[in-house]
Amino acid sequence: MADLPTGNAVIGQSGGPTAVINQSLAGVVEGLQQGLAASGKVRQIFGMRHGVRGIAKGRSGEGRGGSLVDLTRLTAEQLDAIARTPSAALGSTRDKPDEVYCTQILEGCRANDIRYFFYIGGNDSADTCRIVSEKAAEAGYEMRCFHVPKTIDNDLRENDHTPGFPSAARFVTLAHMGDALDNASLGGIKINVVMGRNAGFLTASAALARGVRDSDADPAKRPAPHLVYVPEVPFVMDEFLADVDAVYSALGRCQIAVSEGIRDADGKEIGPQLMRSGEVDAHGNVQLSGSGALGDGLADFLKKGLTPEGGKPPRVRADTFGYLQRCWPEPSAVDAQEARGVGRHAAALAAEGDAGASVTIVRTSNTIDTYRSAFGRSDLSAVARHARHMPDDFVSGRNNVSAAFYDYCMPLVGGLPDFERL
Amino acid sequence: MADLPTGNAVIGQSGGPTAVINQSLAGVVEGLQQGLAASGKVRQIFGMRHGVRGIAKGRSGEGRGGSLVDLTRLTAEQLDAIARTPSAALGSTRDKPDEVYCTQILEGCRANDIRYFFYIGGNDSADTCRIVSEKAAEAGYEMRCFHVPKTIDNDLRENDHTPGFPSAARFVTLAHMGDALDNASLGGIKINVVMGRNAGFLTASAALARGVRDSDADPAKRPAPHLVYVPEVPFVMDEFLADVDAVYSALGRCQIAVSEGIRDADGKEIGPQLMRSGEVDAHGNVQLSGSGALGDGLADFLKKGLTPEGGKPPRVRADTFGYLQRCWPEPSAVDAQEARGVGRHAAALAAEGDAGASVTIVRTSNTIDTYRSAFGRSDLSAVARHARHMPDDFVSGRNNVSAAFYDYCMPLVGGLPDFERL
Repeated sequence: MADLPTGNAVIGQSGGPTAVINQSLAGVVEGLQQGLAASGKVRQIFGMRHGVRGIAKGRSGEGRGGSLVDLTRLTAEQLDAIARTPSAALGSTRDKPDEVYCTQILEGCRANDIRYFFYIGGNDSADTCRIVSEKAAEAGYEMRCFHVPKTIDNDLRENDHTPGFPSAARFVTLAHMGDALDNASLGGIKINVVMGRNAGFLTASAALARGVRDSDADPAKRPAPHLVYVPEVPFVMDEFLADVDAVYSALGRCQIAVSEGIRDADGKEIGPQLMRSGEVDAHGNVQLSGSGALGDGLADFLKKGLTPEGGKPPRVRADTFGYLQRCWPEPSAVDAQEARGVGRHAAALAAEGDAGASVTIVRTSNTIDTYRSAFGRSDLSAVARHARHMPDDFVSGRNNVSAAFYDYCMPLVGGLPDFERL
Repeated sequence: MADLPTGNAVIGQSGGPTAVINQSLAGVVEGLQQGLAASGKVRQIFGMRHGVRGIAKGRSGEGRGGSLVDLTRLTAEQLDAIARTPSAALGSTRDKPDEVYCTQILEGCRANDIRYFFYIGGNDSADTCRIVSEKAAEAGYEMRCFHVPKTIDNDLRENDHTPGFPSAARFVTLAHMGDALDNASLGGIKINVVMGRNAGFLTASAALARGVRDSDADPAKRPAPHLVYVPEVPFVMDEFLADVDAVYSALGRCQIAVSEGIRDADGKEIGPQLMRSGEVDAHGNVQLSGSGALGDGLADFLKKGLTPEGGKPPRVRADTFGYLQRCWPEPSAVDAQEARGVGRHAAALAAEGDAGASVTIVRTSNTIDTYRSAFGRSDLSAVARHARHMPDDFVSGRNNVSAAFYDYCMPLVGGLPDFERL
């Protein structure tokens, strides 16, 4: 450890919070306490209030002002309490630092003698780590930057999956289980809009509600959700109408999981198109904002398309799951454990002399009974910026996911309630 | 028991499902199995598919056709499995029977030698029991009708609270706990639209997320949710804007719980005034659930009203909790137990020779540690049709609930997670 720099450490949280993001915060802190701080290489452990806003020099006064908070002496009990609390305990930020901003971050780090920089977030946070790391090297200032993965979208490269995703997937699965029974009891068509603008993993997790690995090619023969639409598969309105019509005609009901980011064959998002097609608010203005708009737009489309000549429109309802997906306070057990683990691993990499890295999750055993994972490292540049999408073999046809996805996702979500119908 | 009629029993489920409605179904069945069926007064126990649709003669072919299913020999294990499954296992219906429909129900009952009629539902279901009961008496056909209470709206008279409400309130509370932390981490204004068109109990339960009994008169000094709007208090748009402005100016954030049924000083619902289209449901009511329109409309209103001259609009987001509130598969423990109990009690009343009644819940001990309830009876006409509202002492000012409401609701919702912030 002789060649490791001596100074302070800082930890930040960025982007949309998750149910387990504080597990990672606690993991880094306890990892440092037991490692670099115990060995005297780290004197103080700081937390950034509202992400890099808390450390970037000259930015602290802007908007929701950031600052630093001392985490050095948090007890194991305090850390456990923070860890089980959903949503960034330090506060988060949507700032996506550019070169100038990263220079300000570096200045803030120098001013506080930061030698170890930890940032919990998605690919933008990995990129922030990369730029700050490069700027430090250029300036001859020794500082090691570690990215700790987090995103409910599950779209980080180099990772089997990302902390936050399993808990969000558990919420989406449980929601579809309950909602499928609701839909069965009263009939009609139910649309559930799920988060994940570019990657369909979270929407796909709705399919776990079926409780079966293999689903029929005929949507009407599948347990609910009958139809699952991810952004990786082009969404064609007429095909959607035909899919729903077939299920509804056969069963008198249809449950649909749809990603907020579905897009047409040209890659254009469906949401904004539905809002532009003449939907106006009470004041006669085209309403471009509003989180319920995609679901409501699809519901209107189905009502119009499925009303028989001179007949009554079918019962169509849309729920947009919204922020509950990422902050529901009862996380997946696997997720809570792994989120803690990636934080600890980041501190361990620093103690091992790693010059800077992104922590990754690797799956080492793959069934629900034997599921196991390990933590690895990747260069920051391999994770930064670019996003991962659902692999082709997780998708099945235009409105379903595969058994391979089921096998992938089920161990992450964990045990589900066992229901009985008459 | 000599004067009790001998024949069959039928049970139905009506209206919006809940997380525990099948507890009540299981309660009636096991109550009959151990009581009237054991004594030979009840030969067969039937379940109506899709409520009264399943028994009304001449209606079975309509829409989602009803029919009867034999429940007589369900085992305790099967009943337990059905009981823990959310949403009407027999299927539900939105039908609100009129005199003609009730005559058809009576004909169906006579055709199946039904002497004991149990209907699980809200005040409309109590009214169905009342009319059918009267028609049977007029026709000289001996049949006893029992209403088993159920509604997440908690709006039944003669009841301290109703099965289904505590579980929905638990969902709303947990959702606000997680969402409050999400809102704190990123800032901005967050609107959550909660079910309960005429009664504010469910929206009010959001206030339990604060974890404190007493809340400040100044909304900015309360833990989130800072503002709670129930339909019992006139909703004035300009006052709403002023309330949000005050909190947001002080804290940089504001969490708001708002009932889907808020109405202006003239009693006109706000939702339809903000909505783009006048869709109505089967009863001619404008559809508020299964649509994001009210939340989006309020968000749009706040954005416009809070954008400084030439400045950026604040971050405003709206979630409409939708159907998850009533079907989330992890119920309140108190609710599960009581929902089972009201079903058993209905069967017990029948065995005691009651000529027909609505089962009620009475609170016998009132704090979270000593909470206890008992079951009673009420005449069907006392519960039928009319709805209960939040009593005045549960409301505090124009945007809050009282400590009395906290004391009332907390024992029903049960233990909540314990969170820690930095």
